[in-house]
Amino acid sequence: MPLHSESQSAFLTIEQAAKLLRKGEISPLDLVDMSLAQTERLNPALNAFITILAGRARRQARAAGREIRRGNWRGPLHGIPISLKDNIWTRGVRTTAGSKVLSDFVPRVDAEVASRLAAAGAILLGKTNMHEFAYGVTNKNPHFGPTRNPWSHDRISGGSSGGSAAAVAAGLCFASAGTDTGGSIRIPSALCGIVGLKPTFGLVSLVGIVPLAESFDHAGPLTRSVADACIMLQAIAGKHPKGTVPPNYRRLRKDRPRKLRLGWPKQYFFERLDNEVRRAVEKAAECFESLDAHVKEVSLPKLADSIMPSTNIALAEATYYHESQGFYPARVKDYGEDVQERLEWGTKIRAVDYIQALSLRREVQRDFDKVFEHADAILAPTSPIAAPLLGEDEVTIGGETESVRSALLRLNRPANLTGHPAISIPCGFTEEGLPIGMQLIGPRWGESRLLAIALAYEEATEWHKRLPVLSTGI
Amino acid sequence: MPLHSESQSAFLTIEQAAKLLRKGEISPLDLVDMSLAQTERLNPALNAFITILAGRARRQARAAGREIRRGNWRGPLHGIPISLKDNIWTRGVRTTAGSKVLSDFVPRVDAEVASRLAAAGAILLGKTNMHEFAYGVTNKNPHFGPTRNPWSHDRISGGSSGGSAAAVAAGLCFASAGTDTGGSIRIPSALCGIVGLKPTFGLVSLVGIVPLAESFDHAGPLTRSVADACIMLQAIAGKHPKGTVPPNYRRLRKDRPRKLRLGWPKQYFFERLDNEVRRAVEKAAECFESLDAHVKEVSLPKLADSIMPSTNIALAEATYYHESQGFYPARVKDYGEDVQERLEWGTKIRAVDYIQALSLRREVQRDFDKVFEHADAILAPTSPIAAPLLGEDEVTIGGETESVRSALLRLNRPANLTGHPAISIPCGFTEEGLPIGMQLIGPRWGESRLLAIALAYEEATEWHKRLPVLSTGI
Repeated sequence: MPLHSESQSAFLTIEQAAKLLRKGEISPLDLVDMSLAQTERLNPALNAFITILAGRARRQARAAGREIRRGNWRGPLHGIPISLKDNIWTRGVRTTAGSKVLSDFVPRVDAEVASRLAAAGAILLGKTNMHEFAYGVTNKNPHFGPTRNPWSHDRISGGSSGGSAAAVAAGLCFASAGTDTGGSIRIPSALCGIVGLKPTFGLVSLVGIVPLAESFDHAGPLTRSVADACIMLQAIAGKHPKGTVPPNYRRLRKDRPRKLRLGWPKQYFFERLDNEVRRAVEKAAECFESLDAHVKEVSLPKLADSIMPSTNIALAEATYYHESQGFYPARVKDYGEDVQERLEWGTKIRAVDYIQALSLRREVQRDFDKVFEHADAILAPTSPIAAPLLGEDEVTIGGETESVRSALLRLNRPANLTGHPAISIPCGFTEEGLPIGMQLIGPRWGESRLLAIALAYEEATEWHKRLPVLSTGI
Repeated sequence: MPLHSESQSAFLTIEQAAKLLRKGEISPLDLVDMSLAQTERLNPALNAFITILAGRARRQARAAGREIRRGNWRGPLHGIPISLKDNIWTRGVRTTAGSKVLSDFVPRVDAEVASRLAAAGAILLGKTNMHEFAYGVTNKNPHFGPTRNPWSHDRISGGSSGGSAAAVAAGLCFASAGTDTGGSIRIPSALCGIVGLKPTFGLVSLVGIVPLAESFDHAGPLTRSVADACIMLQAIAGKHPKGTVPPNYRRLRKDRPRKLRLGWPKQYFFERLDNEVRRAVEKAAECFESLDAHVKEVSLPKLADSIMPSTNIALAEATYYHESQGFYPARVKDYGEDVQERLEWGTKIRAVDYIQALSLRREVQRDFDKVFEHADAILAPTSPIAAPLLGEDEVTIGGETESVRSALLRLNRPANLTGHPAISIPCGFTEEGLPIGMQLIGPRWGESRLLAIALAYEEATEWHKRLPVLSTGI
């Protein structure tokens, strides 16, 4: 049953909704009711939410409405219904991290991301489904069930912020905050056809977020537009270092760069891609050229050697967290099979190999920094494939078979390894109608410019305007 | 055969020698000849040098003499004979790191420390003996023989910069640059009765120095006086961060603090000490009090838990270096037994435990930083014991038996773990006539103040003026 036309307003951007709210043409309660109605109809199939906070959200919406009517408008997030990935602590609201281990955990404080969004006036609609402990990219959660892709219910949402991406893509909320350790914001954003931003390492506080791998972890927004990503980032970002430009939603259109130089990392990022993905990103490059950008090949020589070291860092840091909390191995049976297996691998990484990996990491970081001396951003696919089927564990790309996990991770983890900001934005559809995403990776603390570049492309294209034909059935 | 009286001038400080040089009352060649004569007589017993550069030093001395006579005096190191620990690369001069593995290694470039000292006009007299690959604290080197303590030839010099300490203590050169990963500058300085400074982590470049454990490694000076340590540090130090005070030899006496606050870390640092050491450091505290200092107990709660984690970090990082160079395990037979054993232990540390250790390390760092909010320096013994006998592998302290390695390391490693600057200065002698050293540990980048505090004590005491009764026999 297509719900497209009747729920169009659930697909407003934050920017659009904020204008209507401010003018009094719509109320926060209208937005919350719209989101809850959409959630009620679609969540049973999508399984995007672990916890839905209907009553609380309505109360907050009424309070926000009163504040706005009184003239105390806090900014573009005031009265906007959003969601948080369920590894972000929320005071008094169960925070499971998608796990059985934390299935009864109710934090006594908010994560900094949560309190900042609350302070900006955003209304928390619910906590989203995720890959168990954020430790996977499919969102096939053994405890809470898989999240389904709004564009095709027999396909994965991608993960680990899959519930956030599905909720935003299907109009169940206006934006979400997720986390990204190896692509966990960008992958589901690409697979669900929305915008996902992983900021510079350290920009967004991780205080009160259940860690996956401490030196790879980032928190960031999932939204339906680039401007909305900027609005969300502004709310959750900590201080930018002196001499750098913090993101500013009001200046976003003014910051649009003139003589844009884009790096095309042919090696690594354009090897082994689905042809439809390759063509979509090539077309995006042509679009940028038509916007007067200069696209030229760039080289990241150490990147190909970094896959195994990256994996070693992530495995060891993840197991460290679960050991340090006393979860693993004590409660080994409470983990899903895939996470169990990875935690065990993590115990076997040698410190010597971890140190070697950190050394290679610094080399890869230098390679990226060098590229950004001559390029404003790197253009690359987010994922080599569109959303795989729920039942698939392996995919075949260009005749080679690869695990779904490896395929979805490999173009994303580089920016986690180096800490550079990366945004995934819609750049096309497969013939079957599945979304394709592309990444723009920018210099450290360069979010402001990166968002302006992404916006230039978004404004020149229509991909972000296409909506999934949503059905209530599985 | 006592050589004390006839070679008194070999024991000039750099400060004193520089004055004579500048006035033309002595020449660089005089100093080099004096040092070489002393070396020729004493080195066969002490075994402080691996390589002696007599001809080259004389040529450099003549050139320095001409420069000074022409009025081109470069500063207090100009024309001063010094030595470098043999893990510091010297262009064209064999740099063995005390190992068989590198016994034929002739670097094509100088380490930054070496080139900075050369630029300051110092004359390189030779490369000093050390514990193999700096991986030990006794200087019992299986390839080049042990370094003997100038105060008692049947005792160890301490290590791993033992050759440097013995050479400086016995007047074979005026100063030396060494390295300190767990006390390797401070331990032999204490055991040989001289001044040894481990600066803030990162202040002195490690470029061109054979690493031991990358996150613990520091380079620094070994000298006969606090002022000389300042002179050496000024020559080798990189940039101090903005807002901190770089060491300045000319201002050293002016920087003397008035209302000094000293921390007394009773727990950890004053547990299990030889009684003579305890009394000497207690007397030093009384001396400081007579100088109007306020000494009060401070607490470093996490320190006691840091011994095993510190060891894990050091073991893993050391093995990483030897593996990454292809030395280990390929050339396992070329290592001494003790180093072999430690390298093997290093392969067994889990990444998870290394990460856990880094986490505890940050806690210990915070504990120290907190102490320095209310104290200018921490006062502690450098070693719980005076120099052990060459044949001893274990010592008994307060009825408890402990390995010599553990005893010498345990009061030193904390400052390597945290990166705070620490200086060891003479503070007494045992009844047997063996030197006792004490440590002053200061806030990060606080070398300037730390040296001024050490100088205040040195000027109030006579310990640094006592000379070993040197004999040529073993």
